[in-house]
Amino acid sequence: MVYDIVLQNVELTDPGDGTLFNIGINGSTIGYVGTEPVAGREVIDGRNHLAVPGWVNAHTHVAMTLFRSYADDMALMDWLQNRIWPLEARLDGRAVYWGSLLGIAEMIRTGTTCFADMYFFMEETAKAAADSGIRAVLSRGLTGSSVADGAARLEENTQLYKTWNGAQNGRITVMFGPHAPYTCSPDYLKSVIARARELGAEIHMHLSETAGEVADCRKQYGKSPIALMEELGMFDGGTLAAHCVHVDEEDMDIMARHQVRVAHNPQSNLKLASGIAPVARMLEKGITVGLGTDGASSNNNLDMLEEVRLAAMLAKTQSGDPKAVPASQALAMGTWMGAEAVGLKNLGKLEVGQKADVVLYNMASPAWYPRHDRTSLLVYAGSSADVDTVLVDGNILLRKGELTTIDLEKVTAEVGQCLKEMTASAE
Amino acid sequence: MVYDIVLQNVELTDPGDGTLFNIGINGSTIGYVGTEPVAGREVIDGRNHLAVPGWVNAHTHVAMTLFRSYADDMALMDWLQNRIWPLEARLDGRAVYWGSLLGIAEMIRTGTTCFADMYFFMEETAKAAADSGIRAVLSRGLTGSSVADGAARLEENTQLYKTWNGAQNGRITVMFGPHAPYTCSPDYLKSVIARARELGAEIHMHLSETAGEVADCRKQYGKSPIALMEELGMFDGGTLAAHCVHVDEEDMDIMARHQVRVAHNPQSNLKLASGIAPVARMLEKGITVGLGTDGASSNNNLDMLEEVRLAAMLAKTQSGDPKAVPASQALAMGTWMGAEAVGLKNLGKLEVGQKADVVLYNMASPAWYPRHDRTSLLVYAGSSADVDTVLVDGNILLRKGELTTIDLEKVTAEVGQCLKEMTASAE
Repeated sequence: MVYDIVLQNVELTDPGDGTLFNIGINGSTIGYVGTEPVAGREVIDGRNHLAVPGWVNAHTHVAMTLFRSYADDMALMDWLQNRIWPLEARLDGRAVYWGSLLGIAEMIRTGTTCFADMYFFMEETAKAAADSGIRAVLSRGLTGSSVADGAARLEENTQLYKTWNGAQNGRITVMFGPHAPYTCSPDYLKSVIARARELGAEIHMHLSETAGEVADCRKQYGKSPIALMEELGMFDGGTLAAHCVHVDEEDMDIMARHQVRVAHNPQSNLKLASGIAPVARMLEKGITVGLGTDGASSNNNLDMLEEVRLAAMLAKTQSGDPKAVPASQALAMGTWMGAEAVGLKNLGKLEVGQKADVVLYNMASPAWYPRHDRTSLLVYAGSSADVDTVLVDGNILLRKGELTTIDLEKVTAEVGQCLKEMTASAE
Repeated sequence: MVYDIVLQNVELTDPGDGTLFNIGINGSTIGYVGTEPVAGREVIDGRNHLAVPGWVNAHTHVAMTLFRSYADDMALMDWLQNRIWPLEARLDGRAVYWGSLLGIAEMIRTGTTCFADMYFFMEETAKAAADSGIRAVLSRGLTGSSVADGAARLEENTQLYKTWNGAQNGRITVMFGPHAPYTCSPDYLKSVIARARELGAEIHMHLSETAGEVADCRKQYGKSPIALMEELGMFDGGTLAAHCVHVDEEDMDIMARHQVRVAHNPQSNLKLASGIAPVARMLEKGITVGLGTDGASSNNNLDMLEEVRLAAMLAKTQSGDPKAVPASQALAMGTWMGAEAVGLKNLGKLEVGQKADVVLYNMASPAWYPRHDRTSLLVYAGSSADVDTVLVDGNILLRKGELTTIDLEKVTAEVGQCLKEMTASAE
């Protein structure tokens, strides 16, 4: 048979011995992976390239790319109150659209094919995802001191779900996004959970990010954020819990029991001095752990390979065991485990029947030599700049390092204009 | 006047507002930095490029690039005894030459203009540095259970000093390289220190890398590695101390008093689960801290921007303060403070009279937008793949991303051949 696209003579991390493979893609799906020659209407030469599943960025606030390098090296509340919130108060849909597109351009350029986002003006982020061809799991960030206070935002999330869940050939799905235990009252959380259940939607929430948050929660409610959410019934649906830095054995047992999935954000946690999540222990307990960048104003890029590398590195020192989270496990966290974390099926492996979300890394730079182990080279030595080709849902979004669906020059010009207006109106 | 080379219309991190500067270079030295137009025999267009001093990699074992991806995710002694040492036993000068050149190619490609190395067959690393045009501070790794046992190696280091110190227009300097307190007896260390003093040379040594090393040293000698070296008189010359992960207040006071300079290796320390050095505290005490990659078999690349970023990130979580080691300080650690650490003068700043070791970063990729703060963009968001141009001592070693002095194809072929022979002789 003739495939729509064939990636020819690529290498794979498994067996990782330099054997050349051909990957045949039909529509949005991988139809063949093997060493036999296959015919394609379009054939991409993959010699000296490593093919891997696209990265899943399991937690971000992509439009915050607008604020990259705007305010760094600050204490959290100073940063929020004096820098981020005043600027966010001037955001509009147009700025969120262009800011999202800038972040999506960076993600595609660095090999990310799917992201799970939580922010506001999310219709605009959905449009940016639709226009760019990337895969996205979107939620409206929800805050509320009471059911009434948060009602309008809950309606927005509901509308987002009705309009966009399953849209674009299933490329876009929608979750509900209660922000955090300290910005949502239990009553409001119950109303969010009820709405999500009613629609069959899952939940994406920040949980146990800082020691202060956990201490405050214990003081106010007599239990940890994780235990509180269990009590409210949140975990009976499907939950993507971002951060989970300060979780104890009891918390992790709850998470394992309810199949709570984690988005670990190693670099953001370091930069904000939140700490290092006990990832090796979570994995031991069978918890699904994906990786995220968080927003570009607390990281400050959307480069998933950095997070994959850092997750492996930090786990070793955090657990005191250099064997913890080996390269292959870090790769899994960045790909198929991340897909599980964000609630997607048939994603994150280069196998027949999986979605054709594929990245080719050019192995020409010195960092890819010698070739003792390709998984190690990718996870510990390579660079996102080696990303040469990116496919999502069988469509080519990056070809020889060039974006095919996004006009970066226009995007940066529009972002500049939006920021100029926001800054002017702030004066 | 007419300069040899002019870097035209570049941006600088200071003031970082997008002002365009011209840099004039005469011979090996920066002769002009300012906004006036200047004439040059060769003019390099630097528009939309950020000019920064080249990175100083303050601690590496560059020929270990041969072992990249050969053995990862292992406990230290298992890794050394069963994987690294058996292969190192089969090393020869030829393998070290080509392995060094591969590592140097990677360093130039990623914006490093100077490295401080400790290994063996160091004549070959010196030749590779000379041939490539990079700046190097070399030491022969010295081990000895007694003066007699280590005598031959000490002679090699002495010969290296006599042949190479100050060679190549001063591009190559030589230190003495006692390996560590646990591989050198006090008597042997005294003989090394005496020889270094006799020649006026400085010392490069691993100190306090792991908790186990410090505990063993206290048990055997009744004091910490730092206190032991003070007692032996090592710190009265000039000392570059690699790692210093497990140093207490007393150790840091000794280091500050004797102006011991540190090579902090954040990624290697994470990967081997050694821990996180108290860098913010060292800097508070006025200790000079440079940054290093360590060897490519424990890291696994020689990308200094990763270390600069990680040093800033880790310091925040290690100290519990998100304001610790801001971007500007991390940049200093990677440049002029690193130069001080490895004992070099007139290096690491873009100022008149400084050595012309300069890197241009292309700011075209999405990660460089928006442009609120160029120091933050470089340290927290950019990529070494954005390195476009590299000069060392006024010579262009990388031009539009292409190496000018190293034939990478030949290097990788020779490395492959050397490894084939080493592996065959191991069977």
